[in-house]
Amino acid sequence: MDIQKLKEDLLKGKRRALAKAITLIESKNPHHKELARKLLEGILPYTGNSVRIGISGVPGVGKSTFIEVFGLYLIERGHRVAVLAVDPSSQITGGSVLGDKTRMEELSRREEAFIRPSPSGDSLGGVARRTRESIFLCEAAGYDMIIIETVGVGQSEISVASMVDMFLLMQLPNAGDELQGIKRGVMEVADAIIINKADSDNIKRAELAKKQLENALGILKRQDKDWQTPVILVSAREKRGIDEVFSTIDRYVKMRKSSGAFEKKRKKQSVDWMWSVVMEGLKSLLESNEKISSIARDMENAVINQMTTPSLAAEYILSRFKESLCEGGAPWRG
Amino acid sequence: MDIQKLKEDLLKGKRRALAKAITLIESKNPHHKELARKLLEGILPYTGNSVRIGISGVPGVGKSTFIEVFGLYLIERGHRVAVLAVDPSSQITGGSVLGDKTRMEELSRREEAFIRPSPSGDSLGGVARRTRESIFLCEAAGYDMIIIETVGVGQSEISVASMVDMFLLMQLPNAGDELQGIKRGVMEVADAIIINKADSDNIKRAELAKKQLENALGILKRQDKDWQTPVILVSAREKRGIDEVFSTIDRYVKMRKSSGAFEKKRKKQSVDWMWSVVMEGLKSLLESNEKISSIARDMENAVINQMTTPSLAAEYILSRFKESLCEGGAPWRG
Repeated sequence: MDIQKLKEDLLKGKRRALAKAITLIESKNPHHKELARKLLEGILPYTGNSVRIGISGVPGVGKSTFIEVFGLYLIERGHRVAVLAVDPSSQITGGSVLGDKTRMEELSRREEAFIRPSPSGDSLGGVARRTRESIFLCEAAGYDMIIIETVGVGQSEISVASMVDMFLLMQLPNAGDELQGIKRGVMEVADAIIINKADSDNIKRAELAKKQLENALGILKRQDKDWQTPVILVSAREKRGIDEVFSTIDRYVKMRKSSGAFEKKRKKQSVDWMWSVVMEGLKSLLESNEKISSIARDMENAVINQMTTPSLAAEYILSRFKESLCEGGAPWRG
Repeated sequence: MDIQKLKEDLLKGKRRALAKAITLIESKNPHHKELARKLLEGILPYTGNSVRIGISGVPGVGKSTFIEVFGLYLIERGHRVAVLAVDPSSQITGGSVLGDKTRMEELSRREEAFIRPSPSGDSLGGVARRTRESIFLCEAAGYDMIIIETVGVGQSEISVASMVDMFLLMQLPNAGDELQGIKRGVMEVADAIIINKADSDNIKRAELAKKQLENALGILKRQDKDWQTPVILVSAREKRGIDEVFSTIDRYVKMRKSSGAFEKKRKKQSVDWMWSVVMEGLKSLLESNEKISSIARDMENAVINQMTTPSLAAEYILSRFKESLCEGGAPWRG
């Protein structure tokens, strides 16, 4: 594979090159990994110039419909839009609902748009890692609005929130007892809440839901005191509220950039990401050592059965691990 | 030091022995650490038989007043009460506000009560670890109600929530715009919210605050569907609402025990704790290696300056770390 050519085509914004590049970074083949490394290092100087937006919501909330309408709205305004999916369920299904090509038909036909399904057959960690690198590739290809879409499965929202500049939570227009609960931790990471399907006979309930959510948000303290999470009524179907979503994103990004919080968050996200990969690597270093991983399992049982304390068990695992490291070659060799 | 004697006195419930044992596990002296290990292993069979309650709230909310009144209430009902503090601020002050002996005067005079300040001059991680082991010691000494108190500093509430059976959040009777925001993540771990100082001319505001908090809680989804976080009005000063706090704890514990969730959570907490100590150990293994830690610093900067991707940087750190491990003795030797 000609990486130089791929890089040039990518920087020219060719969609096929972008698709090919993402396939390359998703590959588990060692040779491909090496090529992917070269490519990523080559395009890094051309990355970062985008707004990264996370969108989460339960199935049926209308994410695809909204993203299609919103994506076309952005294109009208001269933006180039990439849509990436983080969908751990594709791990089970082997094929992602979010990747369904019949979704966002009109958007996907536009040259200014790029839509990529979630890599399937991978853990959330794996999906997240590849998505983070796909963001770089999309940016190098000139996409200045990157939308990371996820269903509310497990920890996926938290994972997506850690890779975007702004996180949008989509809700159904349910109020009162019908108001669907928001999963622990998700309300905390939402920079704005979109109530979709606020149309026809839903409007009253949508407005009540907005009021109730605003009250709840008023009680939760944000780290950035200069932003109060807004609740926006939208009808993707009737294309209403789209401009308010856009102006909210615009206002948030301008505010964060002028305060320096925008850059600061991206740098923190990168450093945190680096360390999380290091820690994963250290853990797999320990787990790849059969003797130590069986000791760890024994210690887990000892702790559960109150035969030792967690910290004493941990110290034992660590000491045995240190001993083993240099016995007849380190555990990861060969 | 005669560990056997200490253990016997501890199991007899002697407060001086308990105080001495906690001082031992807090010691950083290697010989003491070894003795502490022996003691902990000796008393483990006698641990676990308590209800561990976390209480958090901003300074001024009236934690001490409440805990004194509540502690005496528990003693009246035949319980033995231990109060431990997790106060990272003692790290800075060198002495803990929570440890102030003049607090809880009446409670501290009771033989059935044991009050221990937060170990000072230590990180939150260190405080948390020693507190977790102190819980075991208190249980071995026959204290069946363990209260872990913390101020809302940094991550201390989350840390405390991870070591208790039930987490109580104390709030001031402020409503409307005065209603103090609840820190991100804390609302999620609260199993009950206590609004203190609900007396005299505060009552109306306290009732409004209760209503507003209940609305907010209604929107947040709990993992355990069979419990809705209650909001309880209390006046520690006028000793009102104390019985409702007790009956709420009693109801929660009975519900969790009958469903098996009580034991399950404790086991998970122990295993999570073990792994967090292992991961800390692995990280310090890496950081204690001067060459690697300087490489890590360089990589952090490279990532921040977009000269490499976080995962490529992480892979580089890991590969250099693996190489270094067996060069002329492992990094932790000597």
